[in-house]
Amino acid sequence: MGDIEKDKMERIITLTTDFGLKDPYQGAMKGSILSVNPAAVIVDITHLVTPGDINEGALVLRDAYAYYPAGTIHVGVIDPGVGGDRRPILIETERHIFVGPDNGLFTLAIEREKVLRVIRLTNKIFFLKTVSSTFHGRDIFGPAAAHLSLGVDPAEFGERIGEMTKLRARAARREGEAIAGEVVYIDSFGNLITNIEKEEIAGYEGAPEVVIKGLCLEGITKTYSGVSEGAVAALIGSSGRLEIAVNSGSASKVLGVGVGERVIVRAKKR
Amino acid sequence: MGDIEKDKMERIITLTTDFGLKDPYQGAMKGSILSVNPAAVIVDITHLVTPGDINEGALVLRDAYAYYPAGTIHVGVIDPGVGGDRRPILIETERHIFVGPDNGLFTLAIEREKVLRVIRLTNKIFFLKTVSSTFHGRDIFGPAAAHLSLGVDPAEFGERIGEMTKLRARAARREGEAIAGEVVYIDSFGNLITNIEKEEIAGYEGAPEVVIKGLCLEGITKTYSGVSEGAVAALIGSSGRLEIAVNSGSASKVLGVGVGERVIVRAKKR
Amino acid sequence: MGDIEKDKMERIITLTTDFGLKDPYQGAMKGSILSVNPAAVIVDITHLVTPGDINEGALVLRDAYAYYPAGTIHVGVIDPGVGGDRRPILIETERHIFVGPDNGLFTLAIEREKVLRVIRLTNKIFFLKTVSSTFHGRDIFGPAAAHLSLGVDPAEFGERIGEMTKLRARAARREGEAIAGEVVYIDSFGNLITNIEKEEIAGYEGAPEVVIKGLCLEGITKTYSGVSEGAVAALIGSSGRLEIAVNSGSASKVLGVGVGERVIVRAKKR
Repeated sequence: MGDIEKDKMERIITLTTDFGLKDPYQGAMKGSILSVNPAAVIVDITHLVTPGDINEGALVLRDAYAYYPAGTIHVGVIDPGVGGDRRPILIETERHIFVGPDNGLFTLAIEREKVLRVIRLTNKIFFLKTVSSTFHGRDIFGPAAAHLSLGVDPAEFGERIGEMTKLRARAARREGEAIAGEVVYIDSFGNLITNIEKEEIAGYEGAPEVVIKGLCLEGITKTYSGVSEGAVAALIGSSGRLEIAVNSGSASKVLGVGVGERVIVRAKKR
Repeated sequence: MGDIEKDKMERIITLTTDFGLKDPYQGAMKGSILSVNPAAVIVDITHLVTPGDINEGALVLRDAYAYYPAGTIHVGVIDPGVGGDRRPILIETERHIFVGPDNGLFTLAIEREKVLRVIRLTNKIFFLKTVSSTFHGRDIFGPAAAHLSLGVDPAEFGERIGEMTKLRARAARREGEAIAGEVVYIDSFGNLITNIEKEEIAGYEGAPEVVIKGLCLEGITKTYSGVSEGAVAALIGSSGRLEIAVNSGSASKVLGVGVGERVIVRAKKR
Repeated sequence: MGDIEKDKMERIITLTTDFGLKDPYQGAMKGSILSVNPAAVIVDITHLVTPGDINEGALVLRDAYAYYPAGTIHVGVIDPGVGGDRRPILIETERHIFVGPDNGLFTLAIEREKVLRVIRLTNKIFFLKTVSSTFHGRDIFGPAAAHLSLGVDPAEFGERIGEMTKLRARAARREGEAIAGEVVYIDSFGNLITNIEKEEIAGYEGAPEVVIKGLCLEGITKTYSGVSEGAVAALIGSSGRLEIAVNSGSASKVLGVGVGERVIVRAKKR
C-alpha cells in the first residue's frame, strides 16, 4: 500500500460514548478533535450506550471496531469515574489504537488483539488548554486521539503502565454435557444476544436444543426468516454468538426477557 | 466540472437502514465500507426506520436521495428477509446508484429516475471475506458500495436482471370529483404526510377543502405558522405532497391520527 | 499555518436542528450542502432539539460551537416561523460564521464573540432552485452555508442589517447576599444545568450552600463521583455553570425537577 493511502486510513477516529445525541457533549468533543486535526475522519459507532454502563459499551465496541481498517483510533468514553482516580490511557495494538478511561471499557475488544503497549495519558500538551473535571472526552480523550491521528508517537503521551483494569468476565461455562450462558445484550430489534460462542456450539453432534425461560428451541436456524413469522428461533448472530430472535418481532418482548437471563445449550434428547 | 471534483463527488455513500443508533450494526457497516475505501464520504440519511418497515424506508429514501449530487451511491438496508432468497442488487440510474436488497425498498426513489441497469450482486470478491447470513449490510452491501465508490464498473458485480420486486403502490385516486388519499408517513413534528401530490390538487379551481377524520379544512395554507397557534392546517409540504399540520403542535396527537388514515380533497361547496 | 490547512478548516459545517434523526429532513439538508460543495465536512451537533424550542437550541449551540476551529460555519435550524416574515440571516464573527433564521437561536453563542457583520440572506443564486415555504434548512440555509464554505464573501448574500432578534435573557441575579438562578437545561444523564456562572459563585468566601426544591447542598464538589453513590451533588459542570447531579443516577428523576426550577446559592450560615 502506498503512503498516501496509509495516511488517509490513519486519520479515522471512531467514537463510542454514553453522551446521547441531544446534548452538546458529542458535538463539543468532535469540535475539540477537529481543532487539533481538521482532516480527521470522525465516525460515530454510538453515543447511546446506557449512561455509565461500561459492560454494554464494551460489547458494542467489541462488535464494531474490528471492521475498521488498520490504523484506526477508537475513542471510548463511558466514564462514570471521570475526574476521579481512574487513569486516562491509550492502548496500542498491532492494528488499532484505543483511547479512553482505564475502567474495563476496552477489555472485550482487545481480547482478540495483540497489545503492544499501554500508556497513561499525562502529557498535558496534548490536552485542551483547560481541562474540566467532568468532561474528559472533550478535554483529554478527543484531543489526544486527534494528536495520534497526526502521527504523534504514543510514547509522547506518558509512561507505560503494566496492568489495566479488566471487566469482570461473563463467559459461558460447561455444566456437565450442557453449556450455560446468559443474555448479555438486547439489540434494537429485540434480538437476545448471548455470551455463547459459535465454536462452543459446534462441538455438539447433530442439532442441539436451546433452552431459555422454560422454552425449548430445537436446532439452530440460519436466518431470521428461517422460521415462520412470529416464531422464536435460535441462530448464530452476526457477531458469531448464539442469539434468540423472533421472525418479524421482538424476542425480548415476546419472551419478556432482559439482560442476565439464563440460556442453556444441550444435546437433543433421543 | 474538472476530474478532481467529479472524483470527490463519486465518493459519497448515503445510508438508510433500520439498524438503530445504539447497537454496533451501523458502526460495523461503516467500518467495512472504510476498510475498502478509506476516502469514502459516508452520510447517514437515517438508521431509525421502524424495524422491517420497507414502506417507511422507501418513503424516507425517496424524500432525501434526490438532493445528493450526481454519482452518489445510496445504500438501503431494511432487510427482514436477509439471508433468505431475496436477491442483493444494485440499481444504476442516470444520476445515482442504489445498493441493497431486492424487496421494493428503492421502488419510490427510482420512479423519477431513468434506470440504466439492474445487477444482481453475486461476485464475492466484492464482499467481506466471511459473509454472515444475518447481516448483509456489513458483509455485502457496504463493501459493494465501497467498491463502486472506487470506480468499479457495476457489470463486475454480477449478471443483469430484468424485473425487480416492487412495493405495492399506495397512490391517491379519483373518486368522482374528489381525490381520495391517505396518510403515509408521520414525521417527528407530528405532521401527517399524505400520498396526494400537489399536481393533483392544482387541478381544483379556487381553494379546495381537505377532509380528515370528520374535520373539514378550508383552503391550503403556505406555511406552518400561516394559521393561528394550535390550529390545524392543510399545506403542501416540502416533499411536494399534501400535509396536515398543527401550528406549534403535533397534528398526529391533536387529531389522534396514524398512518393509513383516509384524506379527501374536494372542491369547496358553494 | 499554510494555505492548505486553512482551506481544510474552512470547510467544516456544523448542524444544530430539531429535525429528528428518523425523517428525511437532515439527510436532505446534507444532500443540498454536498451538491454545492462535495468536499464540505458536515458535523452533527444535534438534530434532537425539542421541536420549535429556540431556547434549548441556543443553549446546545452555545456549549458546543466554541470548540470548533476558526472558520467553521454553524448552521442552526430551529425555525417554527419558517416561510413567515422572520429573516434568514448569516452572522459573521471574528472566528465563526452562523447561518439560520433570525429568531434568537444564535443569541447565546455570539455573546462571547466579536460580531463583524450580520447579513440578510436574499440573493437567490445561493439558494436551491426551488425554495419551499416549509423547509429553509434544505432550500436556503444548507446551500448558503455550502457556498460560504467555498469562500463566497458574506457580502454577496444580501444587505447588512442592524438589529437582530434576541432571546429573552434568563440570567441569574443577586437577591441580597444570595444568587438566584434556575435550571435551564436537563441533559441525558439527568444532570440539572443552571444559569449560574462559576464566576458568580467564586465570589463567596468558603464553601457556599446550594438550595434546590427545599434541599440544601453544602459545598461544591469537583466530580460526579465526589459524593457517595446515589447522593446529590452541586458542581461546576463542563460548560462552566453550576450543575446539580446525582452520582450514578439522574438528578432530574431523583429530585423530580424540570427546566425552570429555582436554584439559590448563598453563603453558608455559621
